[in-house]
Amino acid sequence: MAVEPGARFLDRLRDALPRLRLLTDATDTEAYRHDETPYLHPGTPLGVCFPTSTADVQAIVRLAAEDQVALVPRGAGSGLSGGATAVDGALTVVMTGMDRIVEIDERNLCAVVQPGVVNADLGRAAAERGLFYAPDPASFEWCTIGGNLAENSGGLRCVKYGVTRDAVLGLEVVLADGAVIRTGGKNIKDVVGYDLTHLFIGSEGTLGIITEATLRLRPMPPPKLTLLCFFQTVRQAGDAVAQMTASGLVPVTLELLDGFTIRAVDAALRLGLDADAGAMLMVESDVGGAASEAEIDLAARASEVAGATSVVRSTDPAEADWLREARRRAHWSLEQAGVARMDDVGVPRALIPEMLAVIERVAAEHGMRIGVFGHAGDGNLHPTYVMDRDDPAAEARIDAARAEIYAAALGMGGTVSGEHGTGVAKRGYLEAQRGPDAVRVMRAVKQALDPLGILNPGKVL
Amino acid sequence: MAVEPGARFLDRLRDALPRLRLLTDATDTEAYRHDETPYLHPGTPLGVCFPTSTADVQAIVRLAAEDQVALVPRGAGSGLSGGATAVDGALTVVMTGMDRIVEIDERNLCAVVQPGVVNADLGRAAAERGLFYAPDPASFEWCTIGGNLAENSGGLRCVKYGVTRDAVLGLEVVLADGAVIRTGGKNIKDVVGYDLTHLFIGSEGTLGIITEATLRLRPMPPPKLTLLCFFQTVRQAGDAVAQMTASGLVPVTLELLDGFTIRAVDAALRLGLDADAGAMLMVESDVGGAASEAEIDLAARASEVAGATSVVRSTDPAEADWLREARRRAHWSLEQAGVARMDDVGVPRALIPEMLAVIERVAAEHGMRIGVFGHAGDGNLHPTYVMDRDDPAAEARIDAARAEIYAAALGMGGTVSGEHGTGVAKRGYLEAQRGPDAVRVMRAVKQALDPLGILNPGKVL
Repeated sequence: MAVEPGARFLDRLRDALPRLRLLTDATDTEAYRHDETPYLHPGTPLGVCFPTSTADVQAIVRLAAEDQVALVPRGAGSGLSGGATAVDGALTVVMTGMDRIVEIDERNLCAVVQPGVVNADLGRAAAERGLFYAPDPASFEWCTIGGNLAENSGGLRCVKYGVTRDAVLGLEVVLADGAVIRTGGKNIKDVVGYDLTHLFIGSEGTLGIITEATLRLRPMPPPKLTLLCFFQTVRQAGDAVAQMTASGLVPVTLELLDGFTIRAVDAALRLGLDADAGAMLMVESDVGGAASEAEIDLAARASEVAGATSVVRSTDPAEADWLREARRRAHWSLEQAGVARMDDVGVPRALIPEMLAVIERVAAEHGMRIGVFGHAGDGNLHPTYVMDRDDPAAEARIDAARAEIYAAALGMGGTVSGEHGTGVAKRGYLEAQRGPDAVRVMRAVKQALDPLGILNPGKVL
Repeated sequence: MAVEPGARFLDRLRDALPRLRLLTDATDTEAYRHDETPYLHPGTPLGVCFPTSTADVQAIVRLAAEDQVALVPRGAGSGLSGGATAVDGALTVVMTGMDRIVEIDERNLCAVVQPGVVNADLGRAAAERGLFYAPDPASFEWCTIGGNLAENSGGLRCVKYGVTRDAVLGLEVVLADGAVIRTGGKNIKDVVGYDLTHLFIGSEGTLGIITEATLRLRPMPPPKLTLLCFFQTVRQAGDAVAQMTASGLVPVTLELLDGFTIRAVDAALRLGLDADAGAMLMVESDVGGAASEAEIDLAARASEVAGATSVVRSTDPAEADWLREARRRAHWSLEQAGVARMDDVGVPRALIPEMLAVIERVAAEHGMRIGVFGHAGDGNLHPTYVMDRDDPAAEARIDAARAEIYAAALGMGGTVSGEHGTGVAKRGYLEAQRGPDAVRVMRAVKQALDPLGILNPGKVL
């Protein structure tokens, strides 16, 4: 009887790396099929393995290339577009075992980390030295740096400090043929050759597997001042955001929650927020001292001009932490009200009021509940479809609504994914947003770097 | 008699674009053969043309692809590594005719510009609306945005605001087959597909020709405070820089000049600087108000601890402007002392003192004068070899010295080009810095995007 090719590959893998943790039983591998996209339908993996070194990853990739077995690299699985979901017959490569903070280099204000390091763990290690790692996705307590790099993740502090990309100085990457390259190091400025660092960031493991990253740290900013502004309508909150942007205000955080989300968060977390409000803005300043007061004053004034019903300064850091945590748990809170599918769209930031109006209109026309929250300061919103658990048409109704929202975003020069990647969920819209010629270039790059197509097939492109 | 292929291409070009300005006489094309690298030996171009629209560029590229004629895109020619120098038999495509500021979008804090816009012109147009374009190469009064994008140029304000790359939201690019793509727009966050924007930035026209860019603007910062610190030795100045970095100071400008450069600048521009000093730092703060005073105080203290002989606060903005201009004219000033070849190396910023020591040692061992100035705050230095005009061995002696300096920089994890590109001058060091596998990836990307090799051949790779 002929040996099945997948089984032969697994045997060779066991021979080559006898100490590699390798799961093949469906019961064991199930937990690694999904990311945070329960509505997608992942494949059944050949197995799931847990490399602990770059050499492990190299050996895995070399064998996979020889046997033409596909690989799906993943971190903690906090992704929101299916970039890490399992592929039929592919080996899922879980990077969480490579979780060492190799170095915090205080003199050069950078850190060298393995991809499995949890975002918040890096933040805490940096803070111990008076330093600061800026990118903070809402999942920061459990998402990994490798996943952040794969998706070019955003977060609550992006409006001031930029996204994950802006914090990367260099990467170590295992290529599709098993070779290892370094794309940069600790230099702040370095222009030799093409910039491969930025090509790999956001490519969701389809061009190579990141095994180490050198990340920029900053001096720890002063403690934050926090402002909450409540409005009768989402439109007023959007106007306040547009006004803040136009006035040159760059707060560290500028988050929006609509009334539906406020009530869901308040019900789930009992915060005592204004449950009658139509929208809320959370504005934070970390410049310190009188300058922070001035930023918060500017934000308060813009909100009042836009018609805020109340403007509250939080003076208690513990309270501010809790409010920020509440914002991070907006998606989870909405899930208490039904099946909640969080989306992610962006528009040029001055168009936030228009985008909010579109979402409101689509919700009304489709008779759907769509909670809206997000990073209003950088034009990035998370409309979240909340459906009854027993609605058999939920998927179809969501798809129809999101198609309208995407079309409107693209019509405004926006994007169908601000910070959640392309993965499986958005790849159907890739050509609509980028155009066929740009997608052709992407495919040519993919073909050049992964001619056998073994790296995370079916994602991004 | 058979028509020579180049002549046939030019005839077709004239037919296709009768209004295109096209120079073919050697007297006329001579001015477009060089950039600011007089020591390189450019080829003789087939001709020089001046497109005025994206459609012009498309038509030029399509014909060039059909006839397999190479193209050398260029801006003002302020480049310092030969990225824009002429190639034998190639058509040089001068982008300075596409010099329109298409839009200053105040509400979205961005500008849309053609590649021929001069950097300082964009800065002035932004300033009229209270906005600020951060990247400012020393040549900012005459270099173009297209050249800045091609080289990923730096400048005096990078240490705080980042390099050209960090200011780019999206590009319009004509590909090697004449197709036009847009890689992004006005979105601050946008993660759909691979990031082609960052692939084209710094690729020196070898992957496509940039015909438009959407650039991030910022609110105009407050007026600057300026500090000059004089030291007996370069080493002390380097220590002061390392101390400032370690203390978390991020000034908008942190520039270093060594004694040789101070004296050259002072002789050329009659500034009344301390001509006995071994080194000088120029530190500027633009955070405004008391916070600016605090930054300048911190810098002054670090300098005093490192042994500064004098620390002078400039209170006159006109004087500060003039000092900044003096720094920008450091290369020109050194040229008054002989043939000056400016180099560009970078190291992780804490290693600035070590790199300065290496340059001093190399100068002594080779019996050469090497002026040093540069962006000490981000680890980027410009050692400048100053040779007697009648030294027949000047080239060979420079090559020997720079090889030692590059080897030392690479040994420290540094770079042979911090902000001046790879071009022709540094491509011989590409593999030494990036490694053969990374260069193989770059070649694969080049092959994927420009299979005929018609875009700026012989540059970067």
